[in-house]
Amino acid sequence: MRDLIIIGGGPAGMTAAIYAKREKLDTLLLTREFGGQMARKEVEIDNFPGMGRISAQDLIAKFRDHARSLDVGIEMENVVKISKKRTGFSVETEKNRYESKAVLLATGADPRFLGVPGEKEFIGRGVGYCATCDGPLFASRTVAVVGGGNSAFESALFLSRFAAKIYILEASDRVRASAEIQDQAKATKKIVVIANAKVLRILGNKFVTGIQYLDQKSGTESTIDAEGVFVKIGYKPASLIAGMLAELNEAGEIKYDANTFQTKTPGLFAAGDVSSIKYKQIVIACGEGAKAVLSISEHFRDGGLAAAPKAKPVRSAKKNVPKSSD
Amino acid sequence: MRDLIIIGGGPAGMTAAIYAKREKLDTLLLTREFGGQMARKEVEIDNFPGMGRISAQDLIAKFRDHARSLDVGIEMENVVKISKKRTGFSVETEKNRYESKAVLLATGADPRFLGVPGEKEFIGRGVGYCATCDGPLFASRTVAVVGGGNSAFESALFLSRFAAKIYILEASDRVRASAEIQDQAKATKKIVVIANAKVLRILGNKFVTGIQYLDQKSGTESTIDAEGVFVKIGYKPASLIAGMLAELNEAGEIKYDANTFQTKTPGLFAAGDVSSIKYKQIVIACGEGAKAVLSISEHFRDGGLAAAPKAKPVRSAKKNVPKSSD
Repeated sequence: MRDLIIIGGGPAGMTAAIYAKREKLDTLLLTREFGGQMARKEVEIDNFPGMGRISAQDLIAKFRDHARSLDVGIEMENVVKISKKRTGFSVETEKNRYESKAVLLATGADPRFLGVPGEKEFIGRGVGYCATCDGPLFASRTVAVVGGGNSAFESALFLSRFAAKIYILEASDRVRASAEIQDQAKATKKIVVIANAKVLRILGNKFVTGIQYLDQKSGTESTIDAEGVFVKIGYKPASLIAGMLAELNEAGEIKYDANTFQTKTPGLFAAGDVSSIKYKQIVIACGEGAKAVLSISEHFRDGGLAAAPKAKPVRSAKKNVPKSSD
Repeated sequence: MRDLIIIGGGPAGMTAAIYAKREKLDTLLLTREFGGQMARKEVEIDNFPGMGRISAQDLIAKFRDHARSLDVGIEMENVVKISKKRTGFSVETEKNRYESKAVLLATGADPRFLGVPGEKEFIGRGVGYCATCDGPLFASRTVAVVGGGNSAFESALFLSRFAAKIYILEASDRVRASAEIQDQAKATKKIVVIANAKVLRILGNKFVTGIQYLDQKSGTESTIDAEGVFVKIGYKPASLIAGMLAELNEAGEIKYDANTFQTKTPGLFAAGDVSSIKYKQIVIACGEGAKAVLSISEHFRDGGLAAAPKAKPVRSAKKNVPKSSD
């Protein structure tokens, strides 16, 4: 039985792994992928301190290499179930079952679905959630991006390198993206922003052919011919894996004690975007992952979590005492 | 009058500056030095995610270059006074006076003094607080390090590259450094750990010649002949600059609302090691600096802090509406 299983390989989970190694906890990190939401980031990252401007893939590689250089145990496995045992936890992946005294949920967040007819049917056949992953397939085509926040605009900007025309469809009467990124979108002359556009369905045969929406101001329905639809309406916390072991808030985020990072189940901790922390940012998730592990390590030292890595007592100092004064 | 003055150029302050630029706040960062406590770090840093193992000086340079690449306003000036004005704050340095609507205290922490006779007299003449700064001066000499935590051991390890012998004097009956670093100290065969050693005074003429301590177990006083004494008994929050504008806890740390980062004075915020946050780590301070600025930016948007950078409204979408369906 290990000391700690960390679930999730995004900024929180990877920083947690680095700190767990340093705290000498016997740790295993389980993750489907490295990078978490960074892996679906459409633009370069310029707000991770010390990295300047860096691509998401390069930053992910740096995190991964750092964790590997410390010889942190990592398995690329998808966790399907966590159960509380008499002592500790059982964590099941699609392939294996692991046990640990403590579990840190750092599962982050997954893209939110639009929930309209045609969406699920055409996933991978024109409907996507990651423009950097699929954007280059749409060279010289018309695509639609659903959403009006920074990530929708970032996707549209990325797509503007390939696509002929990009429609941004925002359901409310104004987009929420920053002024800066709106200016960049305007400068491409390829991006058209449509507010008040409530998407009704995604149309297609074998592949996507268009997107139908309601103009909520005029009450008229319109269709855009498009071969790609990127859904960028935010993320939902990947908290379902916690099952009954954790309490969720109305946003689906895991509730936890902000001082100890413990959920309602002793030994089960949460950190980063899966938790109810207010701001979701890479460097913030890193800080929270570090804090969570320092708290877990304290729990071990206090004897709160089964057996603990022991602090080493100082050797008797007697034989080292130097000459007495006078 | 600027939107925001950030005081301090350590991890919290520099990350705050990066985020403030991104939030389009008109910001000035005032700091005596770059790096904060990193500038006095004796060993390489291996727990800043994505950087692998890196020297403190290199990490500081990366932070500084990042802030400069974003064209953040930075002045290398020492703040001596902060006053609340009818609107906003006045921040005085030794050279200038600046005004801003909000102030973020990210002043970190300064080395703690031992407070024994001889300490102040011999600062720079054998007494030091930063082994990396002064260690090389003690080639083939005997030095003492006061303290028993990781930073004392890190100093001793750094000094072991130069000095012939290093005594670590810890007042309590056991050192608190990690088992790993204790093992490293042992392996040098140059480092002697003395527990129960309460330092009484630092001896010298023009320069340090020795250190006198009480063995608290036996009650005997001893003297070690040493030419250097490094005091590594922790840090104290650099919170005095806040004066009456902020409330301090019993550790001298600035009390603040953990959700908004605001102190008891509206518009005055605190983040990082100067604040009452529990864990003091580089990446944690970075995360807190980012959070504080996102909170400050929200205060501006909500109209809570004088005039605010305005969100840009979406242009009328009418002229962009594509063909109607049917």
